[in-house]
Amino acid sequence: MRELDHTHDPGRRSWVESSVPGTDFPLQNLPLGVFRRVGQGEEWRAASRIGESVVDLLAMARGGLLGNWFTRRADLFVGPLNRLMGAGPTVASRLRRSLSEALDATGSVGRDARRRSPVFLHEASDVELRVPADVGDYTDFYASISHATNLGSMFRPDNPLLPNYKWVPIGYHGRASSIVVSGTDVRRPRGQVTVAPDGPPRFGPSERLDYEAELGFFVGRGNALGETIPIAAAQDNLFGVCLLNDWSARDVQAWEYQPLGPFLAKNFATTVSPWIVTWDALRPFRAPAYARGTADPTPLPYLYDEDDQATGGLAISLTVELRTARMHAEGLPPVQLSRARASDLYWTPAQLLAHHASNGCNLQPGDLLGSGTISGPTKESRGSLIELTWRGAEPLTLPTGETRRFLEDGDEVLLRGRCERDGFVAIGLGTCSGRVIGCDD
Amino acid sequence: MRELDHTHDPGRRSWVESSVPGTDFPLQNLPLGVFRRVGQGEEWRAASRIGESVVDLLAMARGGLLGNWFTRRADLFVGPLNRLMGAGPTVASRLRRSLSEALDATGSVGRDARRRSPVFLHEASDVELRVPADVGDYTDFYASISHATNLGSMFRPDNPLLPNYKWVPIGYHGRASSIVVSGTDVRRPRGQVTVAPDGPPRFGPSERLDYEAELGFFVGRGNALGETIPIAAAQDNLFGVCLLNDWSARDVQAWEYQPLGPFLAKNFATTVSPWIVTWDALRPFRAPAYARGTADPTPLPYLYDEDDQATGGLAISLTVELRTARMHAEGLPPVQLSRARASDLYWTPAQLLAHHASNGCNLQPGDLLGSGTISGPTKESRGSLIELTWRGAEPLTLPTGETRRFLEDGDEVLLRGRCERDGFVAIGLGTCSGRVIGCDD
Repeated sequence: MRELDHTHDPGRRSWVESSVPGTDFPLQNLPLGVFRRVGQGEEWRAASRIGESVVDLLAMARGGLLGNWFTRRADLFVGPLNRLMGAGPTVASRLRRSLSEALDATGSVGRDARRRSPVFLHEASDVELRVPADVGDYTDFYASISHATNLGSMFRPDNPLLPNYKWVPIGYHGRASSIVVSGTDVRRPRGQVTVAPDGPPRFGPSERLDYEAELGFFVGRGNALGETIPIAAAQDNLFGVCLLNDWSARDVQAWEYQPLGPFLAKNFATTVSPWIVTWDALRPFRAPAYARGTADPTPLPYLYDEDDQATGGLAISLTVELRTARMHAEGLPPVQLSRARASDLYWTPAQLLAHHASNGCNLQPGDLLGSGTISGPTKESRGSLIELTWRGAEPLTLPTGETRRFLEDGDEVLLRGRCERDGFVAIGLGTCSGRVIGCDD
Repeated sequence: MRELDHTHDPGRRSWVESSVPGTDFPLQNLPLGVFRRVGQGEEWRAASRIGESVVDLLAMARGGLLGNWFTRRADLFVGPLNRLMGAGPTVASRLRRSLSEALDATGSVGRDARRRSPVFLHEASDVELRVPADVGDYTDFYASISHATNLGSMFRPDNPLLPNYKWVPIGYHGRASSIVVSGTDVRRPRGQVTVAPDGPPRFGPSERLDYEAELGFFVGRGNALGETIPIAAAQDNLFGVCLLNDWSARDVQAWEYQPLGPFLAKNFATTVSPWIVTWDALRPFRAPAYARGTADPTPLPYLYDEDDQATGGLAISLTVELRTARMHAEGLPPVQLSRARASDLYWTPAQLLAHHASNGCNLQPGDLLGSGTISGPTKESRGSLIELTWRGAEPLTLPTGETRRFLEDGDEVLLRGRCERDGFVAIGLGTCSGRVIGCDD
């Protein structure tokens, strides 16, 4: 693991007033996204976020506020973040240092930036955000052993965890075109559904619509077709992390998924949070890789790296909240359904990346890897409704008296992520939300 | 089905001299691709192909040789074909008529074009070709019931064809980044492979590398997220067809594919032919949909259209040829391994498209749908080595005396496609070739 630097120093504060203690976005975070002001006909451009403010990086670069290097390379901040992602980890670290200095409450650079802040600082409520990169390919993994065991127990009670699980990071290709940014309504899909395992099916609205709480990892530089990314180099090819909701129609999935995996059950929408917390920002919040049991296999050499084993995990806690239409109408806050830890994932992000490229598959800047549903070993840490209600057999009762087996129209699902460690300023991933609307709404 | 028009008239001939009887690319074909001249530092641009000549559509449009409409919209011919695909079927038909007239041996338009042909006509050997569109998402189906039955018999002898097969078009998302154009070498992948179903695996070169002979369907206009493409409108959203080789590492696949489907076994390379035969060009070569047995279910209403049932299939024959390194060194021609018919597919291309969008998944111009391996009911029509050698148990003996269970380094696989019907000029899809190179070559 590379050294922590002064950008992580807990004593540092920003001159941006909304950067108050407890915010997801203090000076120590500095996530990256893409924004434009609402209704101005503007082009999309790169931004950071601090407190309740959005920082226009293109304007800062053009104004010389990020240093000469970025003034020359202001093109990196035009449009989606793919070019910045492809510029590599040295550029990402340089940007973090420059931005941290400019937003620092002390020092002449920060004072100068503060004076010129009308040029680049916007209220978060005045801007719109998009999916931060053009995602060329989206891959979803299955890295939570508790989730895999839970699902396996339902579908294959005699054989919950398949023999390959502890050896090979299981993943599949998802749909890139239907990735949407937090806040986008999600239409309930129609599909072929059946209750009996052998059919016949009916075609109609999914009655078992679910969410899956995941992290998303954006690829940085990547690799050429036919080349690989060795496990020791994998960290340098990870740009950052977002929240990800892999909406799933369980009744469609159960009928269609054999033998080639999920397809229409999942490709109608995937929601991501707008702010990417960079790999640099996560440095204080690294954790050991999953503690395997003595009977579990050691990772094969192409997936084994001592540094990754020691610090390749992520100490991110992930919560799921639900707000029904009734809760919304009555002004009630969302209710928390679960809380899980990314450090419970069986595979580290670096292992997922190294595995993905191990056959020569080319990963490109802006490609997105989902962790798979993050569930822990306890019931309170189950990251999907199918797990929380055990396939609908144990409905949830909400504070309003409403019950849920699966999602109903009008339900809003909110994911939140948070990193905390003694001696460091906590940072957050913001919110990833989506509301279910009816088939014909 | 729309009417045939004069562009299909068998009496028409082109002034392009290499457009000789028997060519894959007579005046009645006019496929579309993207080219640039070798070593000239040129931009990629749209082309057609006739005989041994490549037709620069951008130059024709700018020169007024395709009519005023295309002169104004010459931008449609810059770069990959996505914009042209998104312009819809009326524009595609208009282009076919204009181009057919310009290349016709009779008439003043053809005479004028012939005189000015140095501006837009190139020898095929002087140009390079690329994947004709930027493929946003690539989906591979499993539409051959014979292939599904063959594979099922090997992996689940007691249950070869799963209960869902005859109801739901099975498909999965593939990898867009590793789609390469015909002629690109394919590096043998490494991966986790195992002989025993329960492991443990070893990591190393795949020893069961295979091809899969498929057709690829390019999406035209597509649909917005949350909308659908009704089956009756599906034809108008299909732009054209190419040949597709879905390279597969069978030993990796067997170990990794449960429960989420194929991943690294297939995403290291997918080869497509450079010329897209348009939906218009295929009109004379339509066939009835698969003749279901009396015990088979009728397609559900969202997959049923009378016109599609009558003429939604494709009378395309697909052959696979193999040329080993030894055959190449000795100047021997490739040997034919199989010949299958696309009309044996259980689902029509329109059904695949309508199903894909039935849940609101957005399809975009240039998206690619693979048919899945096309096999027929006879041994001679099996479209992959795993089927031809029955998982390696029945090796093939080649004319050189060499044997093959799976592909070896230096083997070149060539797919060819051909459409023939009495009373019409036959057209072809050209060649889709790729040579296997070693892991470290």
